[in-house]
Amino acid sequence: MSKHLTKRTEDYSKWYNELVVKADLAENSAVRGCMVIKPYGYAIWENMQAELDRMFKETGHQNAYFPLFVPKSLFEAEEKNAEGFAKECAVVTHYRLQNDPDNPGKLRVDPEAKLEEELVVRPTSEAIIWNTYKGWIQSYRDLPLLINQWANVVRWEMRTRLFLRTAEFLWQEGHTAHTTKAEALAESKQMQEVYANFAENFMAMPVIKGSKSESERFAGAEETFTIEALMQDGKALQAGTSHFLGQNFAKAFDVKYTSKEGKQEYVWATSWGVSTRLIGGLIMTHSDDAGLVLPPKLAPIQVVIVPIYKGEEQLTVISEKVNVFVQQLRKKGISVKFDDRDTLRPGAKFAEYELKGVPVRIAMGNRDLENGTVEVARRDTFEKQTVNQDDLVNYVANLLEEIQDNLFKKALDYRNTHITEVDTFEEFKDAIENKGGFVSAHWDGTIETEDKIKELTKATIRCIPNNAKKEEGICVLTGVKSGRRVLFAKAY
Amino acid sequence: MSKHLTKRTEDYSKWYNELVVKADLAENSAVRGCMVIKPYGYAIWENMQAELDRMFKETGHQNAYFPLFVPKSLFEAEEKNAEGFAKECAVVTHYRLQNDPDNPGKLRVDPEAKLEEELVVRPTSEAIIWNTYKGWIQSYRDLPLLINQWANVVRWEMRTRLFLRTAEFLWQEGHTAHTTKAEALAESKQMQEVYANFAENFMAMPVIKGSKSESERFAGAEETFTIEALMQDGKALQAGTSHFLGQNFAKAFDVKYTSKEGKQEYVWATSWGVSTRLIGGLIMTHSDDAGLVLPPKLAPIQVVIVPIYKGEEQLTVISEKVNVFVQQLRKKGISVKFDDRDTLRPGAKFAEYELKGVPVRIAMGNRDLENGTVEVARRDTFEKQTVNQDDLVNYVANLLEEIQDNLFKKALDYRNTHITEVDTFEEFKDAIENKGGFVSAHWDGTIETEDKIKELTKATIRCIPNNAKKEEGICVLTGVKSGRRVLFAKAY
Repeated sequence: MSKHLTKRTEDYSKWYNELVVKADLAENSAVRGCMVIKPYGYAIWENMQAELDRMFKETGHQNAYFPLFVPKSLFEAEEKNAEGFAKECAVVTHYRLQNDPDNPGKLRVDPEAKLEEELVVRPTSEAIIWNTYKGWIQSYRDLPLLINQWANVVRWEMRTRLFLRTAEFLWQEGHTAHTTKAEALAESKQMQEVYANFAENFMAMPVIKGSKSESERFAGAEETFTIEALMQDGKALQAGTSHFLGQNFAKAFDVKYTSKEGKQEYVWATSWGVSTRLIGGLIMTHSDDAGLVLPPKLAPIQVVIVPIYKGEEQLTVISEKVNVFVQQLRKKGISVKFDDRDTLRPGAKFAEYELKGVPVRIAMGNRDLENGTVEVARRDTFEKQTVNQDDLVNYVANLLEEIQDNLFKKALDYRNTHITEVDTFEEFKDAIENKGGFVSAHWDGTIETEDKIKELTKATIRCIPNNAKKEEGICVLTGVKSGRRVLFAKAY
Repeated sequence: MSKHLTKRTEDYSKWYNELVVKADLAENSAVRGCMVIKPYGYAIWENMQAELDRMFKETGHQNAYFPLFVPKSLFEAEEKNAEGFAKECAVVTHYRLQNDPDNPGKLRVDPEAKLEEELVVRPTSEAIIWNTYKGWIQSYRDLPLLINQWANVVRWEMRTRLFLRTAEFLWQEGHTAHTTKAEALAESKQMQEVYANFAENFMAMPVIKGSKSESERFAGAEETFTIEALMQDGKALQAGTSHFLGQNFAKAFDVKYTSKEGKQEYVWATSWGVSTRLIGGLIMTHSDDAGLVLPPKLAPIQVVIVPIYKGEEQLTVISEKVNVFVQQLRKKGISVKFDDRDTLRPGAKFAEYELKGVPVRIAMGNRDLENGTVEVARRDTFEKQTVNQDDLVNYVANLLEEIQDNLFKKALDYRNTHITEVDTFEEFKDAIENKGGFVSAHWDGTIETEDKIKELTKATIRCIPNNAKKEEGICVLTGVKSGRRVLFAKAY
């Protein structure tokens, strides 16, 4: 396989697919639509998990684990949720295989091992969790119940793409229960903030916080809060959602609590999740034609050191020096790899770490030894700098922060220059088709108009921004009066 | 639900089931055989994961993630493995539900959404992983391949018990590939050592390292190395296994590498795993009639502080003091909870933390304020000590270590006094039936004898200990000559 990537301007989609595979992040598996997350890709996920998990715990949540399977009778209990997921769910019908009498050496489903009730492989866990909460919630003293689960889920999507849309994916799903509507609403907004904070400060991916229009809401939610990011090809990515579920699940599963006043009341609910899809967003926010570009805060390897030497003796001297730096950098909490493989030339190693997006590369050769210097190259701008060895550790620590900031600023600039305000449908179509990015437009608030616009332009309402200001205007499609702009875009 | 537990001497099994539920570790779910792991139980699992994951990474392993589903054609490729798991696997046959025309509001499997090939929910991942490794391994340079996965698996067990045997469970599974038999064997033995180290030094659960007899081996393995623990009721628990898989999977999935000499060779394999079953072992090794007893190194809460006060004012003064201790203890890496709930009396709190196995409880009342002391109680021995506030932090840090050591010693004593050497079948039966524990006996090495002994006594060969010394003897059942003793026991 060639190490060279298709250029983004040639074919963005092809560039993405090649990059994911060549940078050793993930690959397609033998199971339709399911991916294998390779160690390098999984290491990014582990870093994401660690930060998110810390944030969830800091906001009072605890982890738990609920079953993979949802009995059909529970799955169908909350009608809208069931309707939303029934069309794309994997169903377990049998619990045994047996030797196939017609095909020696092969197995077949044992017809006598049919389950009395089919089991749905969870596409999301509201049903199984709310059925459990029924047993956990009796009194207001049991509330709020603030629980998160790290798990795999399955949605039988027809068109899949590595990380962005896969039949099985990894995610976290928070499921909380509250005494009041206000508290549940505050929780779902808080988690939107947590997600936005994570996206911007760790992924260096700017997001717009907003709420979904009715037709884009989670099945079973009364309100869906979202964070929307913009990819380099001008398409939007829904990066995380937090749902205010009202009392829908409490009613479907009969979850009531006794209030302080001794009354029986239905509980208020939220759920919220982000998934391995974030890795797709990370890639498409920062990477370039040379490969992956990773923000230092999530990079599995932050610094790689490559020795440039002739013969064993030089390598030994360089290694001694390098090992001191490695220790010093690690002490600062920086992850470092010293790549002293003798099977690859330095140039090949440079290309490999460019492809894999290691933020900082340090090279040390014979001349550096003589001069007491090293060469430091940053992945984001390709700039190189000769640095005095005595200053190296501080220089690198600062550089990592600078790269993190630079990536965010660059992405923010791109995003900000790709929000186009339009007032006519001509302008709308032109912006969507020729410029890409978010289009800020007045909309009459109806599902019909939303559908019609989607049909005509493939653009959907990404969100009604949290900070949308009141503004008189008319819907770009129907001319009906509207009180604020919403954001449209083509989306992943 | 009564807070009191059934006594262990009355009904050990009932005691266990009650404890798991009352200590808020886990409960049965609406899905047959599947459990819900509650936050407190999951926190123990998280602590286990953190230590194990660190150990795996220190021994050069990386995490990755492979699909939940195994297409039937891959599942059946390694014959023995397929045979071993076919009888108890969940099978996905359809990918959609639809409205049931006969039952308004209900769903049914859509007969038109039948999968062309059935998907088995992984009971273990050798098949899907080795099918993937085929693409990853070309040359000796790609080896060794050292990968671990944290995942859920499903085995359709008929008799289930919380943590010990559940239809779905959480585990890690390592899957490694090597150029030589010797290297693969060394890897599988290394992981047995890692597991033993974890069991003894973190779980405080002594284990015997050994290998399995042929009939107890993992389906598809050439050798299974095991760690075997002894529970308080005299039954053994297989706590972790590491398999040398030979070239079975390499041949089934045609995974070859080009050697340094340019020859095509099959790869050598290992796999190894521990699961949430360990939590069952942890409970049954240390806990008592008052509830859970947790080793400090895995306890979600290591220290709880309970204020004893009358009125708000006293609480305020105590809280100020306590908050200083909390900060000091946390600085030492000790997890502390200050339980200042005003809805429970101190006695009720004491009982709750006894039930939940918090290793150290600190109480601070008005008299302590006057005297500059606190009362420190340890969960393992129920001993109480008045401690000077100035010495508290060091005292607690030392006490946690002492408790960890004490739990291990106590369990080791019990284990060591429950290994009985026998030379006749009468003695064998007597030891198994009346004393419990491990029975060390000569065995003629045949499956027939093993089966017969199991039939007569319910005891199975737990392992052939790694350190078994050569010793002439005769099989307790058949009188045939034998060169070493093996360990039998009734087992979970």
